[in-house]
Amino acid sequence: MSLIKETISKIRSQDAAARERAKARLDQLIMPHWALGRLMDLGLDLAGMTGTEKPPVARKTIVTMAGDHGVAAEGVSKYPQEVTPQMVFGIVGGMAGINAMGRLAGARVVVADLGVAADLSALAKAGKIIDKKVALGTKNMAVGPAMTRAEAERSIEAGIEIANELAETTDVFGTGDMGIANTTPSTAILAVLCGVPVEEITGRGTGIDDATLQHKIAVVKKAIAVNKPKAADPIDVLAKVGGFEIGGLAGLVLGAAALRKPIVIDGFISTAGAMVAYALEPKAADYMIAAHRSVEQGHRFMHTHLGKEPLLDLNLRLGEGTGAALAMNLVEAAARILTEVATFEEASVSHAKDN
Amino acid sequence: MSLIKETISKIRSQDAAARERAKARLDQLIMPHWALGRLMDLGLDLAGMTGTEKPPVARKTIVTMAGDHGVAAEGVSKYPQEVTPQMVFGIVGGMAGINAMGRLAGARVVVADLGVAADLSALAKAGKIIDKKVALGTKNMAVGPAMTRAEAERSIEAGIEIANELAETTDVFGTGDMGIANTTPSTAILAVLCGVPVEEITGRGTGIDDATLQHKIAVVKKAIAVNKPKAADPIDVLAKVGGFEIGGLAGLVLGAAALRKPIVIDGFISTAGAMVAYALEPKAADYMIAAHRSVEQGHRFMHTHLGKEPLLDLNLRLGEGTGAALAMNLVEAAARILTEVATFEEASVSHAKDN
Repeated sequence: MSLIKETISKIRSQDAAARERAKARLDQLIMPHWALGRLMDLGLDLAGMTGTEKPPVARKTIVTMAGDHGVAAEGVSKYPQEVTPQMVFGIVGGMAGINAMGRLAGARVVVADLGVAADLSALAKAGKIIDKKVALGTKNMAVGPAMTRAEAERSIEAGIEIANELAETTDVFGTGDMGIANTTPSTAILAVLCGVPVEEITGRGTGIDDATLQHKIAVVKKAIAVNKPKAADPIDVLAKVGGFEIGGLAGLVLGAAALRKPIVIDGFISTAGAMVAYALEPKAADYMIAAHRSVEQGHRFMHTHLGKEPLLDLNLRLGEGTGAALAMNLVEAAARILTEVATFEEASVSHAKDN
Repeated sequence: MSLIKETISKIRSQDAAARERAKARLDQLIMPHWALGRLMDLGLDLAGMTGTEKPPVARKTIVTMAGDHGVAAEGVSKYPQEVTPQMVFGIVGGMAGINAMGRLAGARVVVADLGVAADLSALAKAGKIIDKKVALGTKNMAVGPAMTRAEAERSIEAGIEIANELAETTDVFGTGDMGIANTTPSTAILAVLCGVPVEEITGRGTGIDDATLQHKIAVVKKAIAVNKPKAADPIDVLAKVGGFEIGGLAGLVLGAAALRKPIVIDGFISTAGAMVAYALEPKAADYMIAAHRSVEQGHRFMHTHLGKEPLLDLNLRLGEGTGAALAMNLVEAAARILTEVATFEEASVSHAKDN
């Protein structure tokens, strides 16, 4: 059995009994009923995911998956492709947004090369990044498939392998991405998997102007027309209009779900990966926590499709895992409400009167 | 000159030069322009408040102000008045929601007794709470003024004193409240200061049923009709339909603003206190950070009045300072973006192409 099939076969729905035990405790905390709102909902989810009403969340790992995109040649981004490896060096050097947000969250930040179009073997040999390079960037999806089906499967397997390799030292996973032009394949994946019009869901990515936005819409449409990805076959969609880091993110989500570990999903690209995972196994959504609603306008369609309401809405559009890092504070808050707040009985506080 | 007047006279607008220096740096960080959105806006505010583009935020203090309300006798809350001192003991014992959230935020939680209707002198003598008790609870505002004008002034002064006493050990203040029935005076303050209909802004507080909600609306209307608070005189409003902890919160805000220190405003009651401070000196708003949008439906009217967009929206309705504690993570994130992320030049990353 392939690693993908084997992993999917291990994914179970949330543990209903653990959710019930968590609810029984939260119902009795010294506060008006459910007064911490969505953090208490999240507490139930954490219990359901981990199978315990005292969910462990201390060891946080954000995996920032990097890859390049042949479609960058179409001029869909504001930045040149060389920025992808430059930012990998920036993150490894601790200088990027995700490093600052990761330190704040108490999270380890791990960079994985799924397909950067540059030789990063020195970083890999030095143990500074995880080397899962599938190829030196995808091909240009505007003229043909971004990758072969075998490469698409390999990228998902790589993500699963990373989840498994980090499992022993990780309570909560977070996703992140780095890859110039990667909102373009993410938009195509969303358009195909949800059947929504490209115009409605194409955003400005790194900050492109109106003319480039119109061009980006045309490129996404062309990629779909040229490749005819089959919506019912998520690996076909990933292969034809996806990216290596997006496949890696899909695998990371599947791996985390199979391990019964929560995974905090960052922005537009991360959520595209989560959508591929969901298309392969809908129960994977039981382990996803939507970190934030991005400026990228297609993001809300993804959340609706996945049945998720994001925790934060702060006009973020950086990626890298920054939103996931910020949301991890709320994940920890939810766990602490379960484990650190007393019940009425424990604290000898008077109960509510009947109205 | 009275302490209130003296404090107000010290409140200056944000430092425009420090904001400019912060903006110059944020414009150059290795990310698409302003890609961390509202956290970068907040970074400008922190610079403007503190007068430096490297705003100190490490030492966080949440002041949870406690007080009782004569109007509780009207049956406007789901909980008996004895819960106020019980919860003070709960917080002092580290067992409450604010303790868990404060620990997560790395914030010190300080409880101040502004007017609890119970003898807390043992806690005060043991140094467990700050004793600024004005009286053993307010009078019932449904039949007459909640307090005298002198008491209202004393409660504001007490809040200013607390800000000054904690200033040397605090970079960022947070507000919190504890007081059975205190959404009722907060609603009355909002109705008077903003001139909005009581029906539109009265919420369920601790979770009252429909009949009690209608009764609460009638009680707020009666309190306003009986006392005729003068909207142009915020101390008159506080005296007639306010509360001691609300006055204390107003003073804490004024004190923090005079000290040029950021103050994170928690929920409905805290924001009622902030509105009294704003009515006394609008420039105080320059130092306020709105933590979250509460379930309490009047809260959004307050934010609109103060010109603030809250950072979080998580269906919280606990108070105690819990929302402020959660938002402090975002305050720290904003500061770290200013101080820990490299510029394009520092990191040797390629700039954006012209589109």
